[in-house]
Amino acid sequence: MSKVKPIGPIPAGYETIDGELSIGGETASALVAEHGSPLFIYSARHLDSRIEALRAAMPDQLHIHYAMKANPYAPLLSHMVGLVDGIDIASGGELAMALGAGASANHISFAGPGKRDDELLRAIQAGVTINIESPTECDRALAIGANEGLQPRLAIRVNPDFDLKGSGMKMGGGAKQFGMDVELVAPTVQTILEAGAHWRGFHIFAGSQALKADAIIETQAQTIALAARLAEEIGQSPEHVNLGGGFGIAYFPGDEALDIAQIGHALDQQFAKLPAILRETQFAVELGRYLVGEAGVYLTQIVDRKESRGESFLVVDGGLHHQLAASGNFGTVIRRNYPAAIATQYDKPSEEIISIVGCLCTPLDLLSDRAEMPKAQVGDIVAIFCAGAYGASASPANFLGQGPAKELLVG
Amino acid sequence: MSKVKPIGPIPAGYETIDGELSIGGETASALVAEHGSPLFIYSARHLDSRIEALRAAMPDQLHIHYAMKANPYAPLLSHMVGLVDGIDIASGGELAMALGAGASANHISFAGPGKRDDELLRAIQAGVTINIESPTECDRALAIGANEGLQPRLAIRVNPDFDLKGSGMKMGGGAKQFGMDVELVAPTVQTILEAGAHWRGFHIFAGSQALKADAIIETQAQTIALAARLAEEIGQSPEHVNLGGGFGIAYFPGDEALDIAQIGHALDQQFAKLPAILRETQFAVELGRYLVGEAGVYLTQIVDRKESRGESFLVVDGGLHHQLAASGNFGTVIRRNYPAAIATQYDKPSEEIISIVGCLCTPLDLLSDRAEMPKAQVGDIVAIFCAGAYGASASPANFLGQGPAKELLVG
Repeated sequence: MSKVKPIGPIPAGYETIDGELSIGGETASALVAEHGSPLFIYSARHLDSRIEALRAAMPDQLHIHYAMKANPYAPLLSHMVGLVDGIDIASGGELAMALGAGASANHISFAGPGKRDDELLRAIQAGVTINIESPTECDRALAIGANEGLQPRLAIRVNPDFDLKGSGMKMGGGAKQFGMDVELVAPTVQTILEAGAHWRGFHIFAGSQALKADAIIETQAQTIALAARLAEEIGQSPEHVNLGGGFGIAYFPGDEALDIAQIGHALDQQFAKLPAILRETQFAVELGRYLVGEAGVYLTQIVDRKESRGESFLVVDGGLHHQLAASGNFGTVIRRNYPAAIATQYDKPSEEIISIVGCLCTPLDLLSDRAEMPKAQVGDIVAIFCAGAYGASASPANFLGQGPAKELLVG
Repeated sequence: MSKVKPIGPIPAGYETIDGELSIGGETASALVAEHGSPLFIYSARHLDSRIEALRAAMPDQLHIHYAMKANPYAPLLSHMVGLVDGIDIASGGELAMALGAGASANHISFAGPGKRDDELLRAIQAGVTINIESPTECDRALAIGANEGLQPRLAIRVNPDFDLKGSGMKMGGGAKQFGMDVELVAPTVQTILEAGAHWRGFHIFAGSQALKADAIIETQAQTIALAARLAEEIGQSPEHVNLGGGFGIAYFPGDEALDIAQIGHALDQQFAKLPAILRETQFAVELGRYLVGEAGVYLTQIVDRKESRGESFLVVDGGLHHQLAASGNFGTVIRRNYPAAIATQYDKPSEEIISIVGCLCTPLDLLSDRAEMPKAQVGDIVAIFCAGAYGASASPANFLGQGPAKELLVG
């Protein structure tokens, strides 16, 4: 017999119409009838309420940036540009998309360990802030600026000497390809200042996808202390400090939503006792997954239902080519089930243990492993939640000749 | 201090010119100078010699099919069409590509657990063999055929009651979404015959990426015995039996190349003592990775070299968006190093322990972890081997706004 495996928690805020999952006021079956399957649906209302709740919890003076790598779908990105204080990019391709979505160059910053010269050139021409990751990258940016007769806007990305505890992805606290070790920061800022370029401040990103407020609070305090120590060493206040992100979302069984009120309260206290050298500094957090992850649902229609050796399978017309992370093949060691449901039987009780597999001819294409679900048939629609971040753009869309899923932003 | 980690074995057949890795008679630096970086290079000579060696080892009457999911790059696919006896596809998209590459519909077969009606329709119209994965899929195919006034060519994909031992991906031996359980096969063939459709035979695929000849030999013997048992139950000889694949290539430290001579010898013996009901049957093996994997090299140029907390990093302009599997994020639980080299310092001795990371702003983007390499600088070119299968098409090309790498088939 199959052993049941739990699914992750379905994000709050989803409703039903006539017993079906609805998004933006339309049922899953109406959305698929109109737009086809597979389909990524992003809810603008979810995006709005997430930002609103975050602003209410955080200190007024904190800027909120969107790390567009989480989801670069153009209509969603344009929507986010209207909601946040800055867009963080990670490539020349994302620079073009951010400008295309209406972001102002003043509010764009560019991080990434392998920026090519042509990307630095376009970033300097556009006037965006470049988070410098190494002394040699600094030299390249200054040379390009001098060659163009332009003053680059350069922040230093620091490899912090601490990490974000409980983080799904550590990006600090040891040997890293990201940013520069602490002792290289002051000399590199001196080089920037001597070259007459515009030193913007620091970018300090210790890790991502943490669900414990305590860990984020501790990291933010360490980040502010590190920024103060570096500013003292440089002898100049930074205009801007990017405190990184780290705000996680609940994907898996047992995950609990992050307590942002606690983080906001602690950050208020931090801001109230800032060292003198940081009192005029503009602070920001850089969030991707936290802002958009729960606003997206991946809908995919059931093509076959089959039994094999006592187990049941639903075969859908989508798969890991659109939702690689949900298949357990992206950044996870042990596969666990994302939140999932039969969208067209949404209010029905669970009746059976069933696996939901994608249409690809590979055993990797497993979207939900032996979870309890209402009884579904061919034509029913499966919903995979938490599909708003690292979904469509982080999956191999052309694998097995399938091509991308349609994406749609709804109200 | 860094602890050195080994790299996988570099495939045979690569040469040097002026101390550099060369492919198709051109150095890595000449190829990158002409075509840019990052760049997938596929060697036609490697493809030719791999097929030639395989044909020499296998029984004359065995057909060799190419499973194009491994690499659908159009010029490579066209080249393969000229070398093999059949093309195995896994989607409507691959059907169009196979026909476009000049494959004859008679030599195409289509497997995949989630075939949509529109894909079945196109396959039936084209006249390719469809490997039927469930009784309900059979009903759909027969209905579409009847509706079109066409006689579908249908084989049965069997979920074998054994697996391929030591296989990287098991596709048989238990509850599976692939094919149908053994006891469903004969009734489904009866349905096909009664409907007046063309029953082509069996497709029995137990697993892939095995490196032990013994395991493949045992599986092939079991597969032939199963085909005979099913044919007796049906009371009719199958025209065609696809014995599956399973031939692996050496990716990782300690992997040893598969002994195909041993497999060919055993298969000769099997064919010499075939049961009467299979004596007129055409047998085929379906290989993807084994045919094309070692013929591909991914070239990517070094953008930065940095030291952090006692470790050294080379940052390249490519990454997991082109080579997801090499980053350890596709179908592997424990990350190990693919074969890699500094292409532009190819004949130099190892001098240091260094990690090669991609340009993406994520710690997942690790192409080679703390391996011994000659000393490389910015502008040098890194080669990741075994890039001919499940590389470009199995990676999230648009992640972080990067876009696909150029691909090139050379002589």
